[in-house]
Amino acid sequence: MPYFDAASSAPLHPVARQALLAALDEGWADPSRLYREGRRARLLLDAAREAAAEAVGCRPDELVFTPSGTRAVHDGIAGALAGRRRAGRHLIVSAVEHSSVLHAAAAHEADGGTVTEVPVDRTGRIAPGAYAAALREAPGGVALACLQSANHEVGTVQPVAEAAEECAAADVPLLVDAAQSLGWGPVEGNWSLLTASAHKWGGPAGVGLLAVRKGVRFRTVQPADERESGRSPGFENLPAIVAAAASLRAVRAEAAAEAERLRGLVERIRARVPELVPDVEVVGDPERRLPHLVTFSCLYVDGEALLHELDRAEFSVSSGSSCTSSTLTPSHVLRAMGVLSEGNVRVSLPRGTAEADVDRFLEALPGVVAGVRERLGAPKPAGAGAEAAADPDPEPKPEPEPELVVDSLGKRCPIPVIELAKVIGEVPVGGVVTVLADDEAARLDIPAWCEMRGQTYEGERPAEGGVAYRVRRRA
Amino acid sequence: MPYFDAASSAPLHPVARQALLAALDEGWADPSRLYREGRRARLLLDAAREAAAEAVGCRPDELVFTPSGTRAVHDGIAGALAGRRRAGRHLIVSAVEHSSVLHAAAAHEADGGTVTEVPVDRTGRIAPGAYAAALREAPGGVALACLQSANHEVGTVQPVAEAAEECAAADVPLLVDAAQSLGWGPVEGNWSLLTASAHKWGGPAGVGLLAVRKGVRFRTVQPADERESGRSPGFENLPAIVAAAASLRAVRAEAAAEAERLRGLVERIRARVPELVPDVEVVGDPERRLPHLVTFSCLYVDGEALLHELDRAEFSVSSGSSCTSSTLTPSHVLRAMGVLSEGNVRVSLPRGTAEADVDRFLEALPGVVAGVRERLGAPKPAGAGAEAAADPDPEPKPEPEPELVVDSLGKRCPIPVIELAKVIGEVPVGGVVTVLADDEAARLDIPAWCEMRGQTYEGERPAEGGVAYRVRRRA
Repeated sequence: MPYFDAASSAPLHPVARQALLAALDEGWADPSRLYREGRRARLLLDAAREAAAEAVGCRPDELVFTPSGTRAVHDGIAGALAGRRRAGRHLIVSAVEHSSVLHAAAAHEADGGTVTEVPVDRTGRIAPGAYAAALREAPGGVALACLQSANHEVGTVQPVAEAAEECAAADVPLLVDAAQSLGWGPVEGNWSLLTASAHKWGGPAGVGLLAVRKGVRFRTVQPADERESGRSPGFENLPAIVAAAASLRAVRAEAAAEAERLRGLVERIRARVPELVPDVEVVGDPERRLPHLVTFSCLYVDGEALLHELDRAEFSVSSGSSCTSSTLTPSHVLRAMGVLSEGNVRVSLPRGTAEADVDRFLEALPGVVAGVRERLGAPKPAGAGAEAAADPDPEPKPEPEPELVVDSLGKRCPIPVIELAKVIGEVPVGGVVTVLADDEAARLDIPAWCEMRGQTYEGERPAEGGVAYRVRRRA
Repeated sequence: MPYFDAASSAPLHPVARQALLAALDEGWADPSRLYREGRRARLLLDAAREAAAEAVGCRPDELVFTPSGTRAVHDGIAGALAGRRRAGRHLIVSAVEHSSVLHAAAAHEADGGTVTEVPVDRTGRIAPGAYAAALREAPGGVALACLQSANHEVGTVQPVAEAAEECAAADVPLLVDAAQSLGWGPVEGNWSLLTASAHKWGGPAGVGLLAVRKGVRFRTVQPADERESGRSPGFENLPAIVAAAASLRAVRAEAAAEAERLRGLVERIRARVPELVPDVEVVGDPERRLPHLVTFSCLYVDGEALLHELDRAEFSVSSGSSCTSSTLTPSHVLRAMGVLSEGNVRVSLPRGTAEADVDRFLEALPGVVAGVRERLGAPKPAGAGAEAAADPDPEPKPEPEPELVVDSLGKRCPIPVIELAKVIGEVPVGGVVTVLADDEAARLDIPAWCEMRGQTYEGERPAEGGVAYRVRRRA
């Protein structure tokens, strides 16, 4: 039963399991105690810290273990902001950071701080010089900048080393969230703080990493605690820490070969999906990306139904579509990229994924998508002459009055886009159709549909009960 | 090799180990995902929450899992204080709470809040009505009160139900830190919030509990996160959570019988140690106490040397003596009780402790203590006619001038008390000896020695380089 959601949580690596079992017997005592069980626990903790620090590329005394990647991010950002309170209260983040970073930024804003979100291009990547520009244009002293090493939803690798240089030039520390990439290799460049999460690389849950380079001002905002250099309160989760360090070392040893193999499988998905499934947009940077992750969106498809059908076919994937989120808004990553969010599928291959499973996925996907589309009454695929074929007259005409209006109020993604696609053929070339919708996904997906279909998106305006989106037929 | 420090961390219960192993295979996926691995993880999480809530005595939706007992305390106190910001900013704690509570209180003070520490008697117990008095005398609106269910250093059980009634009458929530007692049974009374730590009952590290009764105002101060009702950010440590819940159920099933058995062993230690070792003070409430924990202090003994010798004899215990703490101050619990801190030993028996091991401990202890005393040049035991015997004249006399002064500046516990004991015989009855000392433990141990020896402690005053402690010879 193929599990293709390693980016959410990777199955436990055999080395992690083995190390965890051994440490359950040897590492349950308090490592701060002086008796033999305590000393044994302390040795295990020290060895785990050395191994993890080596993999991170920092000194052992720069690294602490936290209870999760999220707590590493929360405590790391709060500590760096507090440590640099005198330098200012501005925080710079990219628009496509993990929610833990964006939530920490929102907490900082609620506390009176200010935040810049650096935009990304259509591949999800920040532009060269983007952090330098954000630093220049900051409204006040900048305390901290944050940039992920690679995006968790679309796999795009960020230019961390360049951003770190830009930050260093402005004497501002850069925190790198390396949750998605640390298993594949160390983060390049002159970063100041780094966070990661063990269960993303095949380690156990319950362990995050927070590295703070010597010389970086840092003040813990948690109540005092003597453990983990005072930077992560609470009794050390030692067996899991031992398993995390051991598995990080193990996945690194396999990383080069496995990255190459998975990159080939992902390349196959990237190439084959658009051939096999009509009206698909593969998103993310085609070259500078994580080896194991690929994301695409399918027009006229309900993401939740798609995931459900794939689960029935025994494929476990995730989605950034609005209907799969508790807030019914599309993923902030897809929004920042400006790409289609409906029918979104993220495939992230765990280490050891069999080629045959990827092929089975590629066999199953077209039928699953077609089935969902059929149930939704989606238009026939483009190229099969569906949408435009309804209009026998391809000549430009003056815009007729009144405009065609599609009322999709109260209808959820992907219905507004399906209804738009169904009527576009009735609009003369040069004419305009207005879609009324109150679903948040329409704001992203109607422009994305225009881009994919070669139609002209003319913008939105408020309308009674929702938003009016104007689309001009170009062909 | 007997391990007698269950109060720091209990060895992993076999049921915890078994459940952890099973959940490593079944529970590594993200429980918020909709595919089968996620649904399976969600089922495990829900079942663990139900089991833990039943053991706590609350509804499952009142209980969240945190990464440790310390984080449960920190997040619980911060959330309750924030939720009741309008009611006021005063916090009431007992003077003998766990350091995680006192550190949270200190953080609250640093943030502009105010704190009352409710004192305890010589057994470590708060007085009846003490919380009502603290509520009445609070300098402003009280946001929260905290009281441990039982003390972690001396085992004294607190009158939680009474304190909860006093708080309820004032409409103030009571947070109970049940870390030491939850494995033995639910906390009685009308508490509002409750915290606990799994590795204290034989569960794994990495799991704390935070229960917040419906109707208690609570506002998470952490950045937003959708997991654990927004009250404990970060990916759930699921295998450990499953193991924590399973082992809590298991230890509860064994609790009544095991408590009775361990209570008998502890009773033996309480009775025999003062018979076997001269100049010992057994501390804590003799009746209202945890079944598995006993603490005593040995005059004229260096706690670190004592622990080291016991470790060589293969007994693992802990100590509240100043020399065993990183800050070189005696345990705040012993200080609040006003009992001797030198040569302090806490014995906390894990479940399953063999009677023979306790007897071996009782056999080994007298020789170990005598050895440490001999190396320190301690006076011979009282009753053997040591200290007072040096003075052949028991008649009261007018106080001579100049007083006898012992200069113990620069000397660490237990040396100042040993030097005091050595000279007391040279002081005429009714006369005074002054001890100059700069070791923090002297402030506690000189009065405690006077209490044990029937001498009169007359108080302290600042002196050059330290503090002058006045002792009047009574007999």
